[in-house]
Amino acid sequence: MAVKITTRAENYSQWYIDIVLQAKLADYSPVKGSMVIRPRGFAIWEKMKSVLDSMFKETGHSNAYFPLLIPESFIKKEAEHVKGFAPELAVVTHGGGEKLEEPLVIRPTSETIIWAMYKKWIQSYRDLPLLINQWANIVRWEKRTRLFLRTTEFLWQEGHTAHASKAEAQEETLRMLFVYQNFAESFMAMPVLTGEKTESEKFAGAVKTYSIEAMMQDRRALQAGTSHNLGQNFAKAFDVTYQTQNGERDHVWATSWGVSTRLVGALIMAHSDDRGLIIPPKLAPTKAVIIPIFNNQNKSRVLSYAKVLYERIKTSYSTEIDDDEQNKPGWKFAEWELQGVPVRIEIGPRDMENDQVVLVRRDTGEKITIPAKDLEETLGNLLEEIQNNLYHRALLLRKKNTYQIKEYAEFKEIFDGPGGFIESAWCGNPECEAKIKEETKATIRVLPLGRDELKNHNCIYCGSTADKIAVFSKAY
Amino acid sequence: MAVKITTRAENYSQWYIDIVLQAKLADYSPVKGSMVIRPRGFAIWEKMKSVLDSMFKETGHSNAYFPLLIPESFIKKEAEHVKGFAPELAVVTHGGGEKLEEPLVIRPTSETIIWAMYKKWIQSYRDLPLLINQWANIVRWEKRTRLFLRTTEFLWQEGHTAHASKAEAQEETLRMLFVYQNFAESFMAMPVLTGEKTESEKFAGAVKTYSIEAMMQDRRALQAGTSHNLGQNFAKAFDVTYQTQNGERDHVWATSWGVSTRLVGALIMAHSDDRGLIIPPKLAPTKAVIIPIFNNQNKSRVLSYAKVLYERIKTSYSTEIDDDEQNKPGWKFAEWELQGVPVRIEIGPRDMENDQVVLVRRDTGEKITIPAKDLEETLGNLLEEIQNNLYHRALLLRKKNTYQIKEYAEFKEIFDGPGGFIESAWCGNPECEAKIKEETKATIRVLPLGRDELKNHNCIYCGSTADKIAVFSKAY
Repeated sequence: MAVKITTRAENYSQWYIDIVLQAKLADYSPVKGSMVIRPRGFAIWEKMKSVLDSMFKETGHSNAYFPLLIPESFIKKEAEHVKGFAPELAVVTHGGGEKLEEPLVIRPTSETIIWAMYKKWIQSYRDLPLLINQWANIVRWEKRTRLFLRTTEFLWQEGHTAHASKAEAQEETLRMLFVYQNFAESFMAMPVLTGEKTESEKFAGAVKTYSIEAMMQDRRALQAGTSHNLGQNFAKAFDVTYQTQNGERDHVWATSWGVSTRLVGALIMAHSDDRGLIIPPKLAPTKAVIIPIFNNQNKSRVLSYAKVLYERIKTSYSTEIDDDEQNKPGWKFAEWELQGVPVRIEIGPRDMENDQVVLVRRDTGEKITIPAKDLEETLGNLLEEIQNNLYHRALLLRKKNTYQIKEYAEFKEIFDGPGGFIESAWCGNPECEAKIKEETKATIRVLPLGRDELKNHNCIYCGSTADKIAVFSKAY
Repeated sequence: MAVKITTRAENYSQWYIDIVLQAKLADYSPVKGSMVIRPRGFAIWEKMKSVLDSMFKETGHSNAYFPLLIPESFIKKEAEHVKGFAPELAVVTHGGGEKLEEPLVIRPTSETIIWAMYKKWIQSYRDLPLLINQWANIVRWEKRTRLFLRTTEFLWQEGHTAHASKAEAQEETLRMLFVYQNFAESFMAMPVLTGEKTESEKFAGAVKTYSIEAMMQDRRALQAGTSHNLGQNFAKAFDVTYQTQNGERDHVWATSWGVSTRLVGALIMAHSDDRGLIIPPKLAPTKAVIIPIFNNQNKSRVLSYAKVLYERIKTSYSTEIDDDEQNKPGWKFAEWELQGVPVRIEIGPRDMENDQVVLVRRDTGEKITIPAKDLEETLGNLLEEIQNNLYHRALLLRKKNTYQIKEYAEFKEIFDGPGGFIESAWCGNPECEAKIKEETKATIRVLPLGRDELKNHNCIYCGSTADKIAVFSKAY
């Protein structure tokens, strides 16, 4: 293998694609816009799924599975929903050799089919809350695609919940937003902003949409997960009512929330470097790799020494050993760096004699030599340190590239130049938002949570009184 | 809830559907032929997935994900394959509001898209074997559907492997067949026959198909998993060659193998009774349920005693506690029996006074009273016993209803009457096979593995010399 990764400085987009393809995370498929997730990429997604799935179960959700194909008429029942999704639909017109009476669409999201079922399942307050999640594939016809970040088909999870009150639905919406934040920060080592989306950016059919937004290394934002308060919109569209404790009938309140294989793209972009992938230890399918260094004379002794160490840590630290005899150590170092394995363990004849091993961190390249007896403890600590370092490095990047700006000229200058996140006051008028987008390509990523109401501020664009802080950025 | 399950004696098909719907395992969806897998049914599938996934990984396979949509022309590349699957295809003709240049079909199985990728990935013997599995949804347009057993969309796993030799591919085919057998027998408690399919029953595009076949309680066979030796058929259709160790080029050898959500249907049919579902402990999402029995006087004491016991076993024996105050104990007993939970633990005021608990087995209804201090040990043993009992009960059913038959008159009599598995000699002529099917509705389920070649036997149908034993049965 001849690794040749474009540097980030040279071409950030190409750098990303080079890593995805050369680390064999994914590949282009013969179907335009669809990707193939290769075993190494899928292993990262499996780790993500497993952590998220536990988090969903701990917050009381169960998994279920709803049909891939949805009658076209269902999509049309919620007015905003159809407006948002109609342009992206894939349509099945024939099945079993015959033209269908009603075309079926491949789910672009499952609100409509799920709420058609909830109508059957929800009768009384005793049936609420109904807390269901689904892991599924989704198709949205995309014109411009990029591996993991935007593909016609992708994998995701979609939570769909039904509640007896408006307040409970809002609580659930925020609960799941914070689950996503916790996952992004504690497992992906990726700091995120949380906040509400503006009208123009919210989910088609939602009352409110919240998202988590991360800064990539090119200082653009990436939306990494969304949580929607759907109000009674879908309950009304599908006529889902329940008997309240007082014996009245009311429409049900709803939420939905999702993250997708896009997170794998975010993970790559957030941490990797010009040598290849960097995976935070908590999500790394392989946390450490042992590379024995030997020649023909000492081969069997070094290998058997290395294997003893391997046996000690292989399960508790998901370690691999690379004892291939065709490739040289230098080649192996490069290959495992490309793969993003957090720690490399080198074991040569001198290490064997001195009863020591060499640990090399993937994030900093730092090398330490330690007594072999301390391997477990040092490795454990090192993995934790790497996890923390990746988080703090990403946080620092965001801090360095986040600006509070009051003058539009300065605002424009930043987006003409280095980019980043800009926090500015905004009057709430969609026209100002649209003008800014037109002039700078920056959009409002979120109206961040937990900020005090503004006083004596002026909209960054029109100068009129503003009561909101908005975070602007160019985005993926 | 008013449970009313049709008895097996009355109407076996209706009994099955009653259990699926009333235990809330699945539901009909508004899309003809598609089903909704509800949380309780999906939890069983999740347990199955998790066990199978470990088995696949232990045998060296990795998971990946390939596109849902396949260009129509791909399906046509392997002549037998298209003949088999063309009548069952769902076809996407429009995407993003435009008519597609080439229609796309929803995968009825993924050989064609996967072998199109393998052509890119396989260059030399160093790339082999390539051992990939995929968990995915599949669409096959079915005219007559039945929840879990046959639906237009279903969930499955499909393994697709590439090898450097014919012998290795055959070895893999049988290895995965035996993985399925092991899973069916050790986890589903469902004994299966293993063997080769006849020409007329094999997978479209395979050289050989093997299957596992279980007997349901109505004495019909259910094909529960298949493993195919694909020879070089797909490698030739997609021109996948590799450089051998000698520097020559040869086509690659292939296998594929799969099991689906059909297994959930098999599990239900194999073990359940007229009170509802019975789940073998190893696959039961909830292994035991505690039902405290109390009145207004002793409520708080009984509940707190029950909760102490619950805390002791809830994690190690995935136990639930039903402390609902609206429903009576008798109602709860029936409800949890319907759900198939292997052990019910009753705790009343007298049990509390005597420091004892009552355990009730779901499989036999047997009740035992034990000292509370022995709860963990007794429960552990009981779950094992139930697992074994279910297996042996199913094995006994199969033995009692398996016949060695030499006379066609007797053969017909059995299929006119009680049905079962019939082992008879068969000459190998597809015409005899077809005639038997026409006259009795029984098909050859497998040519069982490990049987000696026959001598001095005559075909059950035509009487000519036969060198094969075939197992005949009516089937799902």
